[in-house]
Amino acid sequence: MVKINSVAIVGGTHGNELTGVFLAQKFQRNLELVSRPSFNTQVLLGNPLAIEQCRRYIDKDLNRCFKPNDLENAALTSYEEQRAKQIQQILRPSNQLGVDVIIDLHSTTSNMGISILLSHKNHFLLNLAQYLSSVSDDVRVCYSSSSQSDSYLDSLSDLGFAIEVGPVAQGVLNAELFQKTERLVNAALDYIEAYNSRQIVNTSNKITIYQFISAIDYPKNAHGEIQGMIHPNLQFKDYEPLNKGDLIFLTFAGEEITYEGEFTVYPIFINEAAYYEKGVAMCFTEKQEIVLIE
Amino acid sequence: MVKINSVAIVGGTHGNELTGVFLAQKFQRNLELVSRPSFNTQVLLGNPLAIEQCRRYIDKDLNRCFKPNDLENAALTSYEEQRAKQIQQILRPSNQLGVDVIIDLHSTTSNMGISILLSHKNHFLLNLAQYLSSVSDDVRVCYSSSSQSDSYLDSLSDLGFAIEVGPVAQGVLNAELFQKTERLVNAALDYIEAYNSRQIVNTSNKITIYQFISAIDYPKNAHGEIQGMIHPNLQFKDYEPLNKGDLIFLTFAGEEITYEGEFTVYPIFINEAAYYEKGVAMCFTEKQEIVLIE
Repeated sequence: MVKINSVAIVGGTHGNELTGVFLAQKFQRNLELVSRPSFNTQVLLGNPLAIEQCRRYIDKDLNRCFKPNDLENAALTSYEEQRAKQIQQILRPSNQLGVDVIIDLHSTTSNMGISILLSHKNHFLLNLAQYLSSVSDDVRVCYSSSSQSDSYLDSLSDLGFAIEVGPVAQGVLNAELFQKTERLVNAALDYIEAYNSRQIVNTSNKITIYQFISAIDYPKNAHGEIQGMIHPNLQFKDYEPLNKGDLIFLTFAGEEITYEGEFTVYPIFINEAAYYEKGVAMCFTEKQEIVLIE
Repeated sequence: MVKINSVAIVGGTHGNELTGVFLAQKFQRNLELVSRPSFNTQVLLGNPLAIEQCRRYIDKDLNRCFKPNDLENAALTSYEEQRAKQIQQILRPSNQLGVDVIIDLHSTTSNMGISILLSHKNHFLLNLAQYLSSVSDDVRVCYSSSSQSDSYLDSLSDLGFAIEVGPVAQGVLNAELFQKTERLVNAALDYIEAYNSRQIVNTSNKITIYQFISAIDYPKNAHGEIQGMIHPNLQFKDYEPLNKGDLIFLTFAGEEITYEGEFTVYPIFINEAAYYEKGVAMCFTEKQEIVLIE
């Protein structure tokens, strides 16, 4: 077991996700709230210019700019590509030990409650996630393999993860989700403090994980124009089982489209505003139960 | 009684309010849906560049660019100021009769259901609004005097009004609200058709109106920085009575702030994303019952 020496909390990686922006600013002004005896905590605003303009990004989604090859590519000079290199220098300075744990704060227009997004299934993260999902009923844990997630800010650390809360509109603060996110960050910091003191008590040796399978686009015509919307039956139904024959889309003309896959899937990021331009209406996941090994 | 000869339906006056954008595009491709025998219907996209970029506006809120003096001011040349002048030329061409009725389609992150926003209390609009509020239970009617609303696109016509639906995030299509908006537009067109044929049957001679009183800002510090959020007790409670002592804000530090006015008010536009930059946390309205006179 390795000691955790440093934690970074990042808000505003997307400038219009205000929960993270305002929570990070609160922590910056009151560092004692996120300080613990056994490790250092730093708090960072991911995309200052996008925060100022209340936009997700200026030139390019910052949370897709952290692929190792891109960080080394001097030809990539958009605002976010440069900011990603700055953040790498802050969190993993050359020839120095980098930050051990990164907690990146996000929000979504999807009904994802309080979700923990993992890009690694290592012992530390799985146990942390199990602990956090025991703290509150509406905490859920997702995993996508590094082929999807190696461009994310939190991939700068093997012990990085994101907290994704919703539903909340871009550019809006929801007090309840703000407080839940704050409590979850505090619980994570308390867990790390206990971990460093070898006082961890997990409440169960099992954890439920929603593992990313694939992303599904909206119905589109030959010109690539959207022809329909998330079906009312599916709207806000993130994490609920979707079976063959269930309604998923409603076209503008009123036609209903059903899910025709053979296997039950658990959609997440249903109707996330920022994913329209990425061609993603929702992500299908598979529900797994993992047994944690001591 | 004057005959209505022409109606304009406008979507995407705000480029990230997708209900109006996609509904207007649907109507443009299927003009028969909004055609009626006794008048002409045209369909217009308000802010094409903002729609393309899925932003509310490029330089300036288009729906604040229609003050008569501003439309005549050649020195105002931002993208939206120029677009407002173009729209004036389309809907009210010089030396020609302008369009009689303008229906401007909006959406909001506030829980305003299906709201009809009037800037005039003339006989035609009040009777139309009464009819529309009889069509569906969740239709409500708001009024703000022309000192607030003479900058709006729909102020180009004395018979102009806006339909405001929510809650829905910016950049998101909600199928249920899309369909409700479409039904309301259809009901308005049917009403105008009947009005032209003198076949109007209003279901009641009374109408409930929420009349704008004042806008309330978020709690802020001396530097103008936001210090709190809409209280969870008030979130999504648009149109519900707010009495002295009721909770309205929760500061980031956890302090609760109450409403201290002497009179009962009915807040609307609670936590609208686009109003943060305008310094508006919500608008207070007064609930009135108006008796319609034949």
